Amino acid sequence: MKTGLCFLVAAKRCEIADLRQLAQTSVLVDTTARMIHDLQRERGLTNLFLGSGGAHASALRQEQLLASTATETALRACFDTLNIEPQGMTNGARLFSRIAYVLQGLDALPALRKQVDRQRWDAPRATGAYVQLVAGLLAVVFEAADTATDPDVSRLLVSLFNFMQGKEFVGQERATGAAMFAAGRADARQQQRLMRLIESQEQCLEVFADFADPETRALWDNSLSAHLAAELERMRRVLCTSVDGGPLNKAWSTSWFDGCSARIDAMRTVEMRLSLALQTLCDRKLAQARLELDNLERVQATLNESAVAPETQATFFEEPETLEAQAPVRPLGSQLDRGVLDLLHAQAHRLQKMEEELDTVRASLNERKVIERAKGLLMAHRQLSEEDAHRTMRQMAMNQGRRLVEVAEAVLSMAEVLPARLR
Amino acid sequence: MKTGLCFLVAAKRCEIADLRQLAQTSVLVDTTARMIHDLQRERGLTNLFLGSGGAHASALRQEQLLASTATETALRACFDTLNIEPQGMTNGARLFSRIAYVLQGLDALPALRKQVDRQRWDAPRATGAYVQLVAGLLAVVFEAADTATDPDVSRLLVSLFNFMQGKEFVGQERATGAAMFAAGRADARQQQRLMRLIESQEQCLEVFADFADPETRALWDNSLSAHLAAELERMRRVLCTSVDGGPLNKAWSTSWFDGCSARIDAMRTVEMRLSLALQTLCDRKLAQARLELDNLERVQATLNESAVAPETQATFFEEPETLEAQAPVRPLGSQLDRGVLDLLHAQAHRLQKMEEELDTVRASLNERKVIERAKGLLMAHRQLSEEDAHRTMRQMAMNQGRRLVEVAEAVLSMAEVLPARLR
Repeated sequence: MKTGLCFLVAAKRCEIADLRQLAQTSVLVDTTARMIHDLQRERGLTNLFLGSGGAHASALRQEQLLASTATETALRACFDTLNIEPQGMTNGARLFSRIAYVLQGLDALPALRKQVDRQRWDAPRATGAYVQLVAGLLAVVFEAADTATDPDVSRLLVSLFNFMQGKEFVGQERATGAAMFAAGRADARQQQRLMRLIESQEQCLEVFADFADPETRALWDNSLSAHLAAELERMRRVLCTSVDGGPLNKAWSTSWFDGCSARIDAMRTVEMRLSLALQTLCDRKLAQARLELDNLERVQATLNESAVAPETQATFFEEPETLEAQAPVRPLGSQLDRGVLDLLHAQAHRLQKMEEELDTVRASLNERKVIERAKGLLMAHRQLSEEDAHRTMRQMAMNQGRRLVEVAEAVLSMAEVLPARLR
Repeated sequence: MKTGLCFLVAAKRCEIADLRQLAQTSVLVDTTARMIHDLQRERGLTNLFLGSGGAHASALRQEQLLASTATETALRACFDTLNIEPQGMTNGARLFSRIAYVLQGLDALPALRKQVDRQRWDAPRATGAYVQLVAGLLAVVFEAADTATDPDVSRLLVSLFNFMQGKEFVGQERATGAAMFAAGRADARQQQRLMRLIESQEQCLEVFADFADPETRALWDNSLSAHLAAELERMRRVLCTSVDGGPLNKAWSTSWFDGCSARIDAMRTVEMRLSLALQTLCDRKLAQARLELDNLERVQATLNESAVAPETQATFFEEPETLEAQAPVRPLGSQLDRGVLDLLHAQAHRLQKMEEELDTVRASLNERKVIERAKGLLMAHRQLSEEDAHRTMRQMAMNQGRRLVEVAEAVLSMAEVLPARLR
């Protein structure tokens, strides 16, 4: 028969296995972030190339294709290191499905690039393809962030995921703004898209800042020169507030593109810092858990396992506070007699605390999910564009004085009363 | 290099491993439910025994002790079958910690029973000890319910957990009411406790009904004779509405106890039905997932894995709807060419749907957690009893026209601004 202490030791070993997997996951997340960054650069240069009818950025794009391919090889190698045996990884079913999707997308990259080489696809279509692949890669990171059972690790993963998602919104903002400047005139639909992208990225960056370590946050706060930041905001203002159909200065195209690119590169530095912090944290947690396991195993070796300690029998059904009061100064050695019980109380307390912290961190991941889902529902049900669905919900939130996520929840609960065909 | 299809197959294998674990978990839950039922009977008889100064229920109690011990042996054997290797079970860290706690409690049972034999403990103290152990057992079931990744299985587990929790509230209601009738007079504190227990059990039973299968729900609806139900409600009314300190008819003690016991036994029948439904469902899901794996492996065998199917390259970045439109009637055999892509889209759709369903089911588990946590905070911070904390939150909910869970969330978010020492 296995004793309570057996299970306590087993629980600690599971915790170590979980942490080891998290350490591996954070390497996967790091490589995925590199892949996304390369694809964002490739997408930007592809836009310049297609937008100029092949006149600009051709050599730079070819150079980037080599870099992207090298990173792709690294990412595939990283996928190969994963233990794909059943029960090899928690959340394997979801994570592996996401990876399968990404691998199919990577397989299709050469065909996409050929279409671009021959200028058969226009810039929006090529952009859409890259957006799709990046979204698939972000979903891999999301699954990783969603499974962390350690609240501190989960905190950094959620921070990193939001930062990466925010960076992708910046990339899409660059493409949208560049298209407007290149066309030389403002367009109301594009303007709405731009405003949604700016708002979404700000939400992501808020969550990032809430959960990042202070050093990374400081790095982020000082990552852009005040001059460049002001310049970008000025161009944003022009893009967002010009009258629909009104003229835009085509000459700004380059400074917009370069400014956004500088911002993306600065974000990449912060992302690398955060990714490093994540890996360091995993290592530290792992070392700590191993120490705790050593302690547990020492108690296990000392206690006569087969016999139930009589004091445990007598004290299990007492309040811990009562016990403290009864024995304010515990004689040396009695620790072992009551060892298991103390360990149990400590563990129960720790579990409770961890769970509460984890709930807080995960809540922000969930909010994002709920809002996206409600948006999707509005788009499908009312035939709205993403922009319009977003604006509708924001308007409802403002009118009702509620948070966006509360409106989203209301929208989703409404879904159950919709006729099945419309859902 | 592993292909996308490799990972798709791996994902399905993980799903099967998860389901196999769920099947094992549902056996564990079933045995835990039996243990709880025996402890509830033992607690009831212990109350009668202690309340009558040892005059009543002595033989019945001895009989029940034998039954409890037999079930305890079965439960320990069931714990022994669990794979306690690291990564042997998802959520191992939490589940094993809960089991460790339960095992310590079971170890302490003989000492508790000895105190009862000698009538050294009074009824409330013995009741408290049994309540503590049952709570530990329910926590094991909670961890099981919290990890199910299949929404249908999760639905039944959440239903079962709530039913078990509701049944435990009925057991505590029996003890509280019996103590009042035995004392022969009403007591305001006990009355409040009674009302909280009735309200809490009704909430649990609502969640149970929301998530149970129709057959089990029907069984529950017809589980008590109308006569007995009316009889119980009449005694509840007398208990809850008598003036503080006013007389209660001691002679009702037996009918109260027997009526509640009949209710608990009826609940046990429903619980067994639900537990059986859970195991049947796991088996069905497992068989289905195995079929799906067979299909996947057949595709894998047929496709030339090393070469990327050219059509995949061309079609990955298309909308699925566009593809459907392009090939409304697919020629036989083309399935394989586009096989992986179709499978991916189906899988992505399935994952999304499963996640949405799972979120809905889990939300009810979370609400419970949030309310309990807020209650605990009020108790600690304002030095309130459980009853008063509950009533305070209900009052706030009624005044503000909000749901109890919303008030609980508000209470918890308030916690962050409390001085650290008071938290």
